[in-house]
Amino acid sequence: MKLRSFMAYEQHNCKYVGGWDPISNWDVEDCSLDSNINLGKFRVSRCGHPKGTSPWLEGFGTPSGLSQTQYSHIGCISEHACPYKFHSIPNGWYPFWEALGVHLVVLLSLPKKKLFEGAQLAQEVRKQPCHLENPFPPLIGSYQEKMETKSQLDSEKYAADILSIREAQVRINSFIHRTPILSSESLNSIAGRRLFFKCECFQKGGAFKFRGACNAIFSLKDDQAAKGVVTHSSGNHAAAVSLAAKLRGIPAYIVIPKNAPKCKVENVKRYGGQVIWSEATIQSRESVATKVLQQTGAVLVHPFNDGRIISGQGTISLELLEQVPQIDTIIVPISGGGLISGVTLAAKSINPNIRVFAAEPSGANDAAQSKEAGRIITLPETNTIADGLRAFLGDLTWPIVRDLVDDIITVEDKEIVEAMRLCYEILKVAVEPSGAIGLAAVLSDSFRKNPAWKDCNNIGIILSGGNVDLGVLWESLNK
Amino acid sequence: MKLRSFMAYEQHNCKYVGGWDPISNWDVEDCSLDSNINLGKFRVSRCGHPKGTSPWLEGFGTPSGLSQTQYSHIGCISEHACPYKFHSIPNGWYPFWEALGVHLVVLLSLPKKKLFEGAQLAQEVRKQPCHLENPFPPLIGSYQEKMETKSQLDSEKYAADILSIREAQVRINSFIHRTPILSSESLNSIAGRRLFFKCECFQKGGAFKFRGACNAIFSLKDDQAAKGVVTHSSGNHAAAVSLAAKLRGIPAYIVIPKNAPKCKVENVKRYGGQVIWSEATIQSRESVATKVLQQTGAVLVHPFNDGRIISGQGTISLELLEQVPQIDTIIVPISGGGLISGVTLAAKSINPNIRVFAAEPSGANDAAQSKEAGRIITLPETNTIADGLRAFLGDLTWPIVRDLVDDIITVEDKEIVEAMRLCYEILKVAVEPSGAIGLAAVLSDSFRKNPAWKDCNNIGIILSGGNVDLGVLWESLNK
Repeated sequence: MKLRSFMAYEQHNCKYVGGWDPISNWDVEDCSLDSNINLGKFRVSRCGHPKGTSPWLEGFGTPSGLSQTQYSHIGCISEHACPYKFHSIPNGWYPFWEALGVHLVVLLSLPKKKLFEGAQLAQEVRKQPCHLENPFPPLIGSYQEKMETKSQLDSEKYAADILSIREAQVRINSFIHRTPILSSESLNSIAGRRLFFKCECFQKGGAFKFRGACNAIFSLKDDQAAKGVVTHSSGNHAAAVSLAAKLRGIPAYIVIPKNAPKCKVENVKRYGGQVIWSEATIQSRESVATKVLQQTGAVLVHPFNDGRIISGQGTISLELLEQVPQIDTIIVPISGGGLISGVTLAAKSINPNIRVFAAEPSGANDAAQSKEAGRIITLPETNTIADGLRAFLGDLTWPIVRDLVDDIITVEDKEIVEAMRLCYEILKVAVEPSGAIGLAAVLSDSFRKNPAWKDCNNIGIILSGGNVDLGVLWESLNK
Repeated sequence: MKLRSFMAYEQHNCKYVGGWDPISNWDVEDCSLDSNINLGKFRVSRCGHPKGTSPWLEGFGTPSGLSQTQYSHIGCISEHACPYKFHSIPNGWYPFWEALGVHLVVLLSLPKKKLFEGAQLAQEVRKQPCHLENPFPPLIGSYQEKMETKSQLDSEKYAADILSIREAQVRINSFIHRTPILSSESLNSIAGRRLFFKCECFQKGGAFKFRGACNAIFSLKDDQAAKGVVTHSSGNHAAAVSLAAKLRGIPAYIVIPKNAPKCKVENVKRYGGQVIWSEATIQSRESVATKVLQQTGAVLVHPFNDGRIISGQGTISLELLEQVPQIDTIIVPISGGGLISGVTLAAKSINPNIRVFAAEPSGANDAAQSKEAGRIITLPETNTIADGLRAFLGDLTWPIVRDLVDDIITVEDKEIVEAMRLCYEILKVAVEPSGAIGLAAVLSDSFRKNPAWKDCNNIGIILSGGNVDLGVLWESLNK
């Protein structure tokens, strides 16, 4: 098993060394500096706690007196931020770390708050040969089991992983909105489950796309970024790229199909993107984009088939599972697969037991067909009200969808429209068709009546975007 | 100056005594039990910190070793939850309390977490004669100044106060949604200020009204509540009373004017309220309500002219100022005045420098006329799209509006409609006309061009409700 690495920082004039574990999102601390193992640039830490919580809250004693303390509260805290269950460890926490033989490693000498550099350094360390053979004694059976399940995700076969997603979070955090969760007893009652709506319709630009675009554009080196960025998009990604490029101070060339909704095109213009029209087909979009690339020397920011985009979208799961730790299921709209890839990688790294379902319109069901066939299927044409869900899987998103997404739920357009109505009338939120499809899925017969999913009790639904012209909404509901 | 009282609780088998100050929302603690002043049932505490934060977070030493510690961080924490500015106290916190001569009082012997009983006990203590003459030495000049300003609010001439509002928060907290804050760079740019939207449209029942209704109904003793509750309302209060009564398990009789919006009537029915129709006039509403009261023996829950209602609505300010501590201005829709009364009392108790403005439609400008005349003015008729803002001030809300609301901003219906459009298109939120009026006010010429308000930089806007039929919204925007 690979030894995990941590980002580290210094506090109190170097008298305090702490670190951050991107998998568990735990802070790891060595307050007493009496660590007795030193592996070159590594230092062994003697205690830790979930990020954002602190044992000092409980007022248990001096920092150096850790071994005298009781941590009976740690069970419930750990459940929130961490995949490992400590409920069965009666004396709590420090004895647990001690039982581990001290195998948590922090990097030294990063100034506090330089977390971004920390993430980069942690990634370097991660590549170094640094293995321990099963450091976990039998006491921690369930922990070991989780780690083994999770190790499937640790492999490097996907375009993103929990570390790149945590890095994305550090990179984009000051730019994005941490979107709220809404819930409604009325909708819970209709669904027969507890639903938690992650409102990405309130994200900047009106959709989750800003997360990925921001991560991609702020990942570029200065000389790469100088000539600007290009993308082709049905709208939300286009606005997101425009806004992120504006924040970075570089030009954005946006290829938009002629059938894109008016409000999405206006978003692009509002954020200063330069609109270049194409035909509605994906072929036309791509060929126009290629031409712009050649003419400008700008960098392509693909809407979904890009590790940086996937990592950016994955930050949704980090927030969602912090906001609602009891989530056991997440339902995500699927189109090119960037959103669901990031959400799945992050969620299953944090808790491998979480189920992730894709929601897809029957008129653009390439993902369902692909899962069925075991290979990427594209469609000659699509026909759905959900304008954001007409793209097909890419070679970077397909393996994640194939291996890790538990199932695809297909819904009809009329179910999407009904879900939009419920979002408006009960949640009081404007949600575009692509954004409402998760609610449509959870209310669909195919989900409700599937006995395999009857224990999906606490369901996160990603309301992915809110860019719907009011007139279109009104007309849809009155058809 | 009145000595303030605190709610108290016990931890760690009575070895630890703490308290809660409803004005500052600070926890006050006596960990060392070496307090040397005892006033009968009062005990003097030696330290304190803002509720929800803890000095232990900073790991500064043992609980009993407080005097050895440095609290240089307290300035910024205190700014968040507390009106007193400690920035100028270089050695921080404990020396500050010591300099005060120890004048913070806690009640003893309440089990931890029994905050509700604590609030009741605190209220009793509050009535006892317990005065100290200017306990604050010159060191704390600004604190003293704040206290004197605030003492205007401490008088008992209003129907609610910060303590009744804090009690309401404890009472209703498990029933209500803590509604999120939304913000938008686009709207900030349009307004030329930073706007923070408190989304009460996401409250249960779709409007802030549930807070007050819940507080009123759960304040009733069992024998009072048994025969149910009655109200007359334009809709949102009706739904709120229905839902709160349902949660309490008692009947709700709802008198509704015939011109109430369809979606609001449906909310009442959804929550199990019994609808009784009246004519659209306030006289008809009240006479029908009186008849129902006589027939059923139920208790009247007035929509606004009731201290329990005012206190419930005031909990919005407690949340808002926790969520966005830098708020310097709050804009609130005004109708009968229950919402603005609670919001103003709470906000100005926490920070007397906060300005509160009412937003009122020109077609129902009784509050503006009343402020002008210095007495309650009622209108022969009202004419506005804002169906929730047609009521007139009551004898309990008028004194608060008269004394404490800084100004009334009057807007035209077309400005309200434009604000609804911006809420939908940019915030992605369904807001009813009465709910959007705060945004209309902040964008109005009369606010923008008033030099007196040019330093209103961080403005809280209460989106008070979201119950607008989609068809009505669509038609309004296309007139």
